[in-house]
Amino acid sequence: MPISRRTFMASTTALAATPLIGSTPLLAKAPLVGVQAPGVYRYKVGEFEITALNDGFFNRPAEGFVKNADAAAVNAELANAFMATGAVKIPFTVLAVNTGSKLVLLDTGTGGLGAPTAGLFAANLKAAGINPDDVDTIIISHFHPDHISGIRPKEGLPTFKNAEVMVPTPEWAFWMDDAKMAAAPEAAQGAFKNVRRVFGPMAKDVKQYKWGDELVTGITAIAAPGHTPGHTAFAVASGKETLLVLSDTTNHPALFATHPDWMAIFDMDGETAKQTRYKLLDMAAADKMQVAAYHAPFPATGNIVKKGTGYEFVPAKWTSF
Amino acid sequence: MPISRRTFMASTTALAATPLIGSTPLLAKAPLVGVQAPGVYRYKVGEFEITALNDGFFNRPAEGFVKNADAAAVNAELANAFMATGAVKIPFTVLAVNTGSKLVLLDTGTGGLGAPTAGLFAANLKAAGINPDDVDTIIISHFHPDHISGIRPKEGLPTFKNAEVMVPTPEWAFWMDDAKMAAAPEAAQGAFKNVRRVFGPMAKDVKQYKWGDELVTGITAIAAPGHTPGHTAFAVASGKETLLVLSDTTNHPALFATHPDWMAIFDMDGETAKQTRYKLLDMAAADKMQVAAYHAPFPATGNIVKKGTGYEFVPAKWTSF
Repeated sequence: MPISRRTFMASTTALAATPLIGSTPLLAKAPLVGVQAPGVYRYKVGEFEITALNDGFFNRPAEGFVKNADAAAVNAELANAFMATGAVKIPFTVLAVNTGSKLVLLDTGTGGLGAPTAGLFAANLKAAGINPDDVDTIIISHFHPDHISGIRPKEGLPTFKNAEVMVPTPEWAFWMDDAKMAAAPEAAQGAFKNVRRVFGPMAKDVKQYKWGDELVTGITAIAAPGHTPGHTAFAVASGKETLLVLSDTTNHPALFATHPDWMAIFDMDGETAKQTRYKLLDMAAADKMQVAAYHAPFPATGNIVKKGTGYEFVPAKWTSF
Repeated sequence: MPISRRTFMASTTALAATPLIGSTPLLAKAPLVGVQAPGVYRYKVGEFEITALNDGFFNRPAEGFVKNADAAAVNAELANAFMATGAVKIPFTVLAVNTGSKLVLLDTGTGGLGAPTAGLFAANLKAAGINPDDVDTIIISHFHPDHISGIRPKEGLPTFKNAEVMVPTPEWAFWMDDAKMAAAPEAAQGAFKNVRRVFGPMAKDVKQYKWGDELVTGITAIAAPGHTPGHTAFAVASGKETLLVLSDTTNHPALFATHPDWMAIFDMDGETAKQTRYKLLDMAAADKMQVAAYHAPFPATGNIVKKGTGYEFVPAKWTSF
């Protein structure tokens, strides 16, 4: 069940109203709740206010997940990170960036069309008190379904009717090319179809951007190809502070910051993705930049340090401000 | 301002209703919110449901904070952990443990009587949907004010009228001893007075426990002296899983897991506290036990690994379940 503030409170209330069986003293007055609190976290980058919004997760079997590492190596690294083995629990976190002049979404989540353990973005947006109609701009990093499906989500979930949608030019060129779709393997057909489902009805209104462009004041597109042809990272800068939004430069950092040479099955051009990964992680570590990473554990922000032959993602310390 | 779900939502709504000045297109439709989301996180230990509840933080100057390390060394370690330097931001996290037969609080926070940046526990308890009247048992680790003041909080904050209060026997013996109070330094007088303020009116109803006792089914007291004479850790065990609740075995783990030989100014018997710290951190690392630590960054749970000459606190990966 998607976990929202509403279901979270509702389940509490409903269960609390359930009479205890008999009045056995073996039961606590308060029932177990069984759902997570909202996945909402706010932080500042200069004057900008960032809201991290969790969209749940999906489990991907460790077997076959990394092109150049076997399941045993993947499971060993998961165990090192105190994560369950056998499958990689891959979370999704969308960012809302309020620059003061624009409320921007960086990607949009699965739109309720992915795994049953995903699709929490809309509920968390609501829990955060963000009205979808107030979103001015949606900036997309790349066209995989867990990033774009929220633009045109499952029936009943909110859309962003006042938002301008901005996408990377090379991403548009690749995925909207019918010849590329025809040449793509069967496993990629769903992604091509989803691109057409999302952008088909609004194609003429989509604004394409180039790497190096400042997309709205303070948010600049950074070339990060390999994961997909047009995969883009972002610098979010205000005052003296900059957040490096890595998008999918790494999949789960416990695996791919630790082993930047590992290539996830989702990296379409593994070698180029690897070069991008080393370049951006090295920059983040050298400059001690705060980063956000879409597939890092919520709230999906922290820092990168060099460690051994790779890097380590150091989660930011949660604060009540 | 204390940050609660209510103020969080209220401020969103109130600000959203504020007309924009003129109708300049330079302002986003959505205002900055400026408050954090609720500090509530749920996790399971076997069949038990734990709710981590943040009570804010206080800033303690780096200068003079560690008895056997100077401010430069402390600041260097803060910088290594990507924390602000100059002062140590020390968070508080209370645990509610629902065993199915008892709803237990482990400590109670500052009760709104500490730093202005603290006192969020009651609001987070409400955000978590927990009715204070449903709390069956309050188990206290030690008598420092950030752990006991919530038993008798600031006027207007909830009390726990149906809860049995359990405290460590050696802690009671020490702090309730008027001779010990008379002999204590000026800086400790406030803590002695607060113990009398909290427990004076209810002294006859307080249940004292011994180290090794199982306090409620699944929660066992573990000797952890040094920080205070009766300072207690807990094993919270259900099925095959055990959570080691370290209480104040470390203050902020970025400092005191990394440097277990460092003695915080709050460690009353520094040498004994240090021995306890090594013993419990070593056990947690060797047995790969999940830990909770009162002064770790929210949600204040994770694992301990050996690192260099000390240990590292590895935060648990947040999950939407």
